[in-house]
Amino acid sequence: MVTLGDLAAHLGCEPGLADASIELDGIAPLGRAGPRELAFVSEARYLDALKSCRAGCVLLKSEWQADCPVPSLCVPDPYLAYARLSSLFDLLPASVPGIHPGAFVDASVKLPASASVGHGACVEADVVLGEDVVIGPGVHVGRGAQLGARCRIWPGVVLYHGVILGDDCVVHANSVIGADGFGFARRVDGWEKISQLGSVSIGDRVDIGAGVTIDRGALDDTLIADDVIIDDQVHIAHNCVIGRRTAIAGCVGMAGSTEVGEDCTFAGQVGVSGHLKICDNAHFTGQARVIGAIDEPGSYSSGTPLAPTKQWRRNAVRFGQLDALQRRVVKLEAKLEALGGAASDDE
Amino acid sequence: MVTLGDLAAHLGCEPGLADASIELDGIAPLGRAGPRELAFVSEARYLDALKSCRAGCVLLKSEWQADCPVPSLCVPDPYLAYARLSSLFDLLPASVPGIHPGAFVDASVKLPASASVGHGACVEADVVLGEDVVIGPGVHVGRGAQLGARCRIWPGVVLYHGVILGDDCVVHANSVIGADGFGFARRVDGWEKISQLGSVSIGDRVDIGAGVTIDRGALDDTLIADDVIIDDQVHIAHNCVIGRRTAIAGCVGMAGSTEVGEDCTFAGQVGVSGHLKICDNAHFTGQARVIGAIDEPGSYSSGTPLAPTKQWRRNAVRFGQLDALQRRVVKLEAKLEALGGAASDDE
Amino acid sequence: MVTLGDLAAHLGCEPGLADASIELDGIAPLGRAGPRELAFVSEARYLDALKSCRAGCVLLKSEWQADCPVPSLCVPDPYLAYARLSSLFDLLPASVPGIHPGAFVDASVKLPASASVGHGACVEADVVLGEDVVIGPGVHVGRGAQLGARCRIWPGVVLYHGVILGDDCVVHANSVIGADGFGFARRVDGWEKISQLGSVSIGDRVDIGAGVTIDRGALDDTLIADDVIIDDQVHIAHNCVIGRRTAIAGCVGMAGSTEVGEDCTFAGQVGVSGHLKICDNAHFTGQARVIGAIDEPGSYSSGTPLAPTKQWRRNAVRFGQLDALQRRVVKLEAKLEALGGAASDDE
Repeated sequence: MVTLGDLAAHLGCEPGLADASIELDGIAPLGRAGPRELAFVSEARYLDALKSCRAGCVLLKSEWQADCPVPSLCVPDPYLAYARLSSLFDLLPASVPGIHPGAFVDASVKLPASASVGHGACVEADVVLGEDVVIGPGVHVGRGAQLGARCRIWPGVVLYHGVILGDDCVVHANSVIGADGFGFARRVDGWEKISQLGSVSIGDRVDIGAGVTIDRGALDDTLIADDVIIDDQVHIAHNCVIGRRTAIAGCVGMAGSTEVGEDCTFAGQVGVSGHLKICDNAHFTGQARVIGAIDEPGSYSSGTPLAPTKQWRRNAVRFGQLDALQRRVVKLEAKLEALGGAASDDE
Repeated sequence: MVTLGDLAAHLGCEPGLADASIELDGIAPLGRAGPRELAFVSEARYLDALKSCRAGCVLLKSEWQADCPVPSLCVPDPYLAYARLSSLFDLLPASVPGIHPGAFVDASVKLPASASVGHGACVEADVVLGEDVVIGPGVHVGRGAQLGARCRIWPGVVLYHGVILGDDCVVHANSVIGADGFGFARRVDGWEKISQLGSVSIGDRVDIGAGVTIDRGALDDTLIADDVIIDDQVHIAHNCVIGRRTAIAGCVGMAGSTEVGEDCTFAGQVGVSGHLKICDNAHFTGQARVIGAIDEPGSYSSGTPLAPTKQWRRNAVRFGQLDALQRRVVKLEAKLEALGGAASDDE
Repeated sequence: MVTLGDLAAHLGCEPGLADASIELDGIAPLGRAGPRELAFVSEARYLDALKSCRAGCVLLKSEWQADCPVPSLCVPDPYLAYARLSSLFDLLPASVPGIHPGAFVDASVKLPASASVGHGACVEADVVLGEDVVIGPGVHVGRGAQLGARCRIWPGVVLYHGVILGDDCVVHANSVIGADGFGFARRVDGWEKISQLGSVSIGDRVDIGAGVTIDRGALDDTLIADDVIIDDQVHIAHNCVIGRRTAIAGCVGMAGSTEVGEDCTFAGQVGVSGHLKICDNAHFTGQARVIGAIDEPGSYSSGTPLAPTKQWRRNAVRFGQLDALQRRVVKLEAKLEALGGAASDDE
């Protein structure tokens, strides 16, 4: 339970006319929030819903306050304010510091008293753990890996030997960081494995979803900069470099040695070829296929629109004849010109 | 070993002319099934193969029985009958009830005597487990999660705190249910994490493959209805709602807050944008990119046909000129009309 | 530390004019390699960089030796030579043989003295393990699985009951081999699960990345031949057959019962439909959608080029009108001919 006054203090704003002693138990969408719940309005299109709102308190912009029938807190960015307050309502108890009896921690590891290691976890030799680190049940931390303060590693994560995480990173369940990059040289009779001698180095405040794979580098390290956020089931191959604050949505795949700038966004299932440079502020829509360098900030797409399969099939067949169609049009233009028409402007 | 009579009893059909004492050890494809194996014919195009079949028994429609040289069982849907009988031939021994000495089960958990918890598993405080639940080795069940009767959780699965599964669910190895949804608010200097305060609620008889991720909701729960089946490596983002009996094939990615109706099918690698409504009985072919609402039942597709790369490249270049090409055709039509041709019907 | 002489001996080549006693500690890219590091030149375009190289030794072709200011080793294929030498510089200590006290190994398992089983691992009844096998922490090996000599199973991998791996296989963290194939028969009120009675059989020297899923067969086994290499997050459905030396890059999804030939390559995120035959030496570019049989060796592609979203949208709309456009061109051609132009050659 938190009070409206607590929320205002946390945001550094004034409770204004609202009663600071109002008690709140949770956050709920505007439409169903009750008197003990916080709600928020982030866009003007929700103002109608605001008028009939029954929440205990609403986060909103000051210009919308007149439309609000219940107590409110005025903030410049209500969505950001909601994000900042959300953790106050998270009821999950903090992890208990200490080593669970079912965990294995190598004798060489100097564990801070504030750190927690769960049942079944395995922390190998020479691992370095920061204050307040939480190593969940069943996590594996390979030899010599380093985790900064307050890193939270959820159950089943595997961090290979030598992997480095900065402070305040989160890695969700069953993600794998530092597995071998996919490097092989062709022999006549098969493939010669290339030992992946680099590692993975991850900055501060990096948030990694569940089921993610980030491979270790062949010679140099794979690098993830500060404040990068990565959704579930993303694959980042060896020697990629991801710039600060870049956001990567679910199921994106990135091939080896690609360098991504800062503040880029990748929507779900985007595929990126290897050895590319992508500039800052490049944005890719879902399933985009990125096979060349991107030098200009902006939004990029590929693919075709969804359509009923029968109709799609007709057009898809025509795609396979596009070059021929283009030639037919060129021929038509030439003939028409020969017949006396003037050449078109954009030929 | 089961007898033909057992099979007939299980299906509730008559052995007919067949000898009920015939013994069978397994199921095999029609072409290689031997005298101690069951086979089935589900389509008329296999009738030639049926004629030379050597199986101990064949499941088939009555109209095909005359073509069958070996004992048979007549059923209205041989494929469904095969499915129903298949578990009789599964030789994997049942899990032994009880807690493996290498597991950790919090003292607050009331474990049914019929439940099984494997080596290395971790069952946290306030978890509720139904009768005959099987928690495989290395599974993590977070605080307060609830599993209905007969749920089978294969090794390495992570169920986060508060996740709810109905009765008779299956979750295959290393899947993750209830990790944080990908929710962040943009700050000037990075991202503000939004605590994901909802959970995941899953109905009865839901079958989930390996390496799947289903994220917990931001405020409300992510919902998977009864009888949904989900293949490996599917990603379902926070606050999605999946309707009953919908089937989702491998590697599908679904962005947040999308609502899918009942009886839909998604083929492999389909990508679905967030905040969409998809009606009942909508079907999507492989790799389809769904970026708008679907109001009409039916089959939908996107993408282009596969072609030899050289040929594909020529047509792909033309795709980038399609709008220009269209304009050239419009211009040609206008000129031709000016030259004396009548306007075409569909202009 | 290894000497140049060691490297030459390992490759079976002559040190030539180079000093065999030169000591090397690592491998580095040509541009930053220092006097105690090995470098390599695999393509002529790096010859300029070679001229200013400061490496302790460079692997190169004999025709480039004159351009090399530092000691070198001449080899016919420098990239392959680099691959062969790379493991000499891998500093990760070998796993210690024996069973970690936190592991569970069923009493029925005859463990070779050279094998290693890590903390939290679980090796079930009747498993057969070859010499020098490494079962990492938290790995699950299901009943009756067989692993050949020198297999290395990284942490968190789940091998289901009955799965077979040949000699010298590698499986990276959290991959799942042998989960149930996605097999269900439709009932009126839901889905009837088809027990997956086959297994997965994997040849020798197969390398499998992290987060991969390879499902067990419905009746027959899913088959992966010798020397196949598989990157992270690949999904291979039940009853697929993958031919020798085929390479499958990250996030590829392959539907059930597809047979892939030898020496094929699949780039990232390729999707392959089920029940297809793909011949030897077929190659697929990233995100290709393979929905029909491939009978001719060669490279195949699908999709459209990436473009700025605004421009892409214009062309994408036209894709939905392609069939209509084609018809308009046909009509134009007919009209023009009627106006007196001769029919074009390729109409």
